[in-house]
Amino acid sequence: MAVAILAHERFPDHAKTAVGILRYSDRDVVAVIDRAHAGERVAEHLPDVQDAPIVEGVDDITADIEELLIGIAPIGGGFEESWRPDVRAALKRGADVTAGLHYLLNDDEEFAALAEANDCTLRDVRDPPTDLSVANGTAGDVDATVIATVGTDCSVGKMTTTMELVDALRAKGYDAAAVPTGQTGVMIEGWGIVVDRVIGDFLNGAVEQMVTKAAADHDVLVVEGQGTIVHPAYSAVTCGILHGAMPDALVLCHEAGRETIHGYSAFDLPPVETYVDLYESLAAPVAEAEVAAGMLNTRTIESDAAAQEAVDAYAEAIDAPASDPLRFDLTESIEALL
Amino acid sequence: MAVAILAHERFPDHAKTAVGILRYSDRDVVAVIDRAHAGERVAEHLPDVQDAPIVEGVDDITADIEELLIGIAPIGGGFEESWRPDVRAALKRGADVTAGLHYLLNDDEEFAALAEANDCTLRDVRDPPTDLSVANGTAGDVDATVIATVGTDCSVGKMTTTMELVDALRAKGYDAAAVPTGQTGVMIEGWGIVVDRVIGDFLNGAVEQMVTKAAADHDVLVVEGQGTIVHPAYSAVTCGILHGAMPDALVLCHEAGRETIHGYSAFDLPPVETYVDLYESLAAPVAEAEVAAGMLNTRTIESDAAAQEAVDAYAEAIDAPASDPLRFDLTESIEALL
Repeated sequence: MAVAILAHERFPDHAKTAVGILRYSDRDVVAVIDRAHAGERVAEHLPDVQDAPIVEGVDDITADIEELLIGIAPIGGGFEESWRPDVRAALKRGADVTAGLHYLLNDDEEFAALAEANDCTLRDVRDPPTDLSVANGTAGDVDATVIATVGTDCSVGKMTTTMELVDALRAKGYDAAAVPTGQTGVMIEGWGIVVDRVIGDFLNGAVEQMVTKAAADHDVLVVEGQGTIVHPAYSAVTCGILHGAMPDALVLCHEAGRETIHGYSAFDLPPVETYVDLYESLAAPVAEAEVAAGMLNTRTIESDAAAQEAVDAYAEAIDAPASDPLRFDLTESIEALL
Repeated sequence: MAVAILAHERFPDHAKTAVGILRYSDRDVVAVIDRAHAGERVAEHLPDVQDAPIVEGVDDITADIEELLIGIAPIGGGFEESWRPDVRAALKRGADVTAGLHYLLNDDEEFAALAEANDCTLRDVRDPPTDLSVANGTAGDVDATVIATVGTDCSVGKMTTTMELVDALRAKGYDAAAVPTGQTGVMIEGWGIVVDRVIGDFLNGAVEQMVTKAAADHDVLVVEGQGTIVHPAYSAVTCGILHGAMPDALVLCHEAGRETIHGYSAFDLPPVETYVDLYESLAAPVAEAEVAAGMLNTRTIESDAAAQEAVDAYAEAIDAPASDPLRFDLTESIEALL
């Protein structure tokens, strides 16, 4: 599918969703829209993802586009009015528009009317489906191996680990699939539920529903985690994913050098060993799952040698094989997880 | 405030909210409405709560009523059409109507019109407020002692423990208040948030907001817990309350003889000692809180002597003072909690 990604003034460093789609989606990205970088190419910024021209606006895209993805999310999740001409132009060309904003495209009268007139779809991926219910406690019965990514904090690499593990599993011949639980993952995969928008009573159930669905078609699932089990604000979501997924094995994701909870500096991260104990003991009454591998985000470490040292120290601390999924091989981790 | 409680065909055994209001609310209950027991009195069924006549319908109540409370919740949380004449009659008499159903009174066109015409209010306590947001991680900074009730399962006595602890604290001269998190608690107290209806991202935040508000007016808070941290379906809610409240001490509630998760019999309850470890270790990175007391629901044990024996064994298992709040004294527990 041919798509364009809107990332005005935030590409690439503040465009997590745009970069995720360029890196992991099987869509064909025909353009990134960022007025601050128009005329450049994605490859000038990110050599290791699919390349595309960067343009000023939708009207500068000559190729056909089937979908416009909003690849950025300002703090607060609002819709910026400066994006309106691009969304309008995309709809007039008959392209669907997909966003993960708090502001719902479907609630915008102009967009709703244009979508109807041009027979295209507005997808608000943050809006949960209406058929959710309480969990039955049956995710453990599915006919697939379920791996869950868990973390020491937000933004340590759970989504990246999920996608890299699925790619590495597929490269080794496994029929693997991601179970996306956040807006970037859902936009990359084209399905899933943004679980942090689901009400408490249905949170575990939403994850169970996704695991059950994906297990019908695949042999190995990697469930994208959210937050951390010790997060002052987001732990409810983390816990619901852990118990709703009823995983067979856990991957503990961490960022080298992270010492306090992101945005909550009064809260120190406990030692990584403590996380291993916490996740395993909390999972145990619902699903026996060990932290069988670890992933360390080493983006702040320049040399590969120093990064490998950090990974080795992390592996020793959590007593399991470890890697950095963007830097090193995943073979040993995958063997430990299956 | 003079109120009537609707509990058709379910009083008292399947009317948890009605019984909770009779037992704990400071409202003056002028009638219970149950067509199956019309002509009887509450005291014939429940000797230890406030007494009231049981009547066929609202039209049989001669006293003034300011509020009609729907004191029952059928499975699924629907509104039963056989209740409509009573709600209609109450609104026509100018009484507010309060319910904790999934079905929202405010969405019912007839009720909305009658409420407007008679200048009264429809309160749907399950509907969360619209001003919620993510937690700041600041509940631990409030100027009050925060006690949280946690449990080994649903329906073991967390709400009852919360109310009994507050009463016992007040009897000892403390300025204590409950922080209600479920529909019965919210209807008893007349404020609060039904947290299982709050989206994952705001769950911890909703509890923080309540604790912060209550701490401004009171010295000791007892936060009503929900579910259990090892519940296959509801653990997200439990975790959000624990971290959102950032308590100073925990009370572990359990029912004597409970062996599997209620309604999820494939899941054994872990030993009570395991719960102590789990709740304390999960709380620790956010708020240092020990299980300082335990409450054992001994309703299935006939003799006081056998119940006391069970309580003593429970106290030994959790290594903290214990009681049954409906049967025995709370002095020792309160001393341990403060």
